[in-house]
Amino acid sequence: MDLPRLDTAPTAAVLENFVATGMNRSGLDGYVLGLSGGIDSALAASIAVRAVGSDRVRGFIMPYQTSAAESAADAHRLAEKLGITTETVPIAPMIDAYYENVGATDPVRAGNKMARERMAILFDRAFAMNRLVLGTSNRTEICLGYGTWYGDVACSLNPLGQLYKTQVRQLARYYDVPESIVTKAPSADLWPGQTDESELGLEYDKVDKLLYMIIDQAIMSRQELNRSGFEDGFIDRAVSLLNRFYFKRHLPAVADLGLKPIPDKVEIV
Amino acid sequence: MDLPRLDTAPTAAVLENFVATGMNRSGLDGYVLGLSGGIDSALAASIAVRAVGSDRVRGFIMPYQTSAAESAADAHRLAEKLGITTETVPIAPMIDAYYENVGATDPVRAGNKMARERMAILFDRAFAMNRLVLGTSNRTEICLGYGTWYGDVACSLNPLGQLYKTQVRQLARYYDVPESIVTKAPSADLWPGQTDESELGLEYDKVDKLLYMIIDQAIMSRQELNRSGFEDGFIDRAVSLLNRFYFKRHLPAVADLGLKPIPDKVEIV
Repeated sequence: MDLPRLDTAPTAAVLENFVATGMNRSGLDGYVLGLSGGIDSALAASIAVRAVGSDRVRGFIMPYQTSAAESAADAHRLAEKLGITTETVPIAPMIDAYYENVGATDPVRAGNKMARERMAILFDRAFAMNRLVLGTSNRTEICLGYGTWYGDVACSLNPLGQLYKTQVRQLARYYDVPESIVTKAPSADLWPGQTDESELGLEYDKVDKLLYMIIDQAIMSRQELNRSGFEDGFIDRAVSLLNRFYFKRHLPAVADLGLKPIPDKVEIV
Repeated sequence: MDLPRLDTAPTAAVLENFVATGMNRSGLDGYVLGLSGGIDSALAASIAVRAVGSDRVRGFIMPYQTSAAESAADAHRLAEKLGITTETVPIAPMIDAYYENVGATDPVRAGNKMARERMAILFDRAFAMNRLVLGTSNRTEICLGYGTWYGDVACSLNPLGQLYKTQVRQLARYYDVPESIVTKAPSADLWPGQTDESELGLEYDKVDKLLYMIIDQAIMSRQELNRSGFEDGFIDRAVSLLNRFYFKRHLPAVADLGLKPIPDKVEIV
């Protein structure tokens, strides 16, 4: 059982409409987003440019010392192709100021701190420009909790959240995203040679199919998943990530004292 | 029509149970929280200490140059009373490093950047200590959107989210929070003399009653609200904040491609 191929043109239309409508409803003037040099932000930027025009999309390149030089080069290549303005805001001064205080730390903590710094910069610049922050998390990452809560997962709205990673790739080709971006190994770019797939212990092609079967087709039978070619270890790894990081897909729990939910819109008549 | 007075002992029991259960379910070892010197974080810390013990609650004091000296003094006073350890992490090095890059900015942007820096520090330290981040946002703030999205509003779980500000005050007395904290004017402490009430343009005593009528009693009649003593200008101000900041009470919107919601827990059988 395979992940269905996207019908690219209608999917692109839905996503562009979402991005255009989101801006119009907010009353704000456009979008900012982080350009990592990776495929997700490249696709999000491409969608936004078609949706609201290149003048209303600004890309922020926010490298740290350990970021690969090709990452920024790919981000610039994309921006040039799309005709959008970029700004580079190195995060080293803020990150290093923090580490001078707390001392050395492990790569997971460093990655989370950097993701939250980038989020804070994007929201700050969005506020200054009267814009929204465009999200870039795909469905595979969201399912597996592969992202920083209140970090890269945080945004004003997210056009990619129902695209599995392999579908991001398919759609990126439709949008003619530069080949170097489409074909390179996905990476959080925290240290040289890091790749998502080695860190997750799961290949995207395969885990996308598994997640689609489990979530979208509600197939919970191990036997059936085995028959479709998934070994137990693979299934268990994916399911354990899905279950473990459920909280990243929620707002924080609030103690219940029996009050009513707060409505989005109140009208006094 | 008045906001009902809390039945303090049973309310405290519910909140302590929420905090204890949240920790036990997570499998983590305790809580960290930011101690601003204000009443909300003082109450949250007091609840947590009774719920899980003082050894499992650590307070972080994260001043900026513009923070009032009494804020840290009050935070220390509270921590001493509760028998909890505090750590002081000045945020100036990180914040100033950012502003050296982008230049001067307005107080709202500065306040948001600081709130997000504090959030990132709390999550970093929580991760290092294998703990959760305890939230401190009250219902009045949440209703009025008076807080930073992905900043002070962000946490692992929040015991105060269904307490109106005046109820926070009532419960703080029950927990014997130091008087200097209970009686001072609530403030985000971003500049000297700032108070929540002047910034919001609404007094807590009054707006709490109004929000309770509108949200919890579903009274949407202007006439009836006027009869209860609320002028049109006051009603309109509160409702405009409630409607304007609805997005802070949500996860970011995701473009809908017709896929299923991602379940919290999957069991393969």
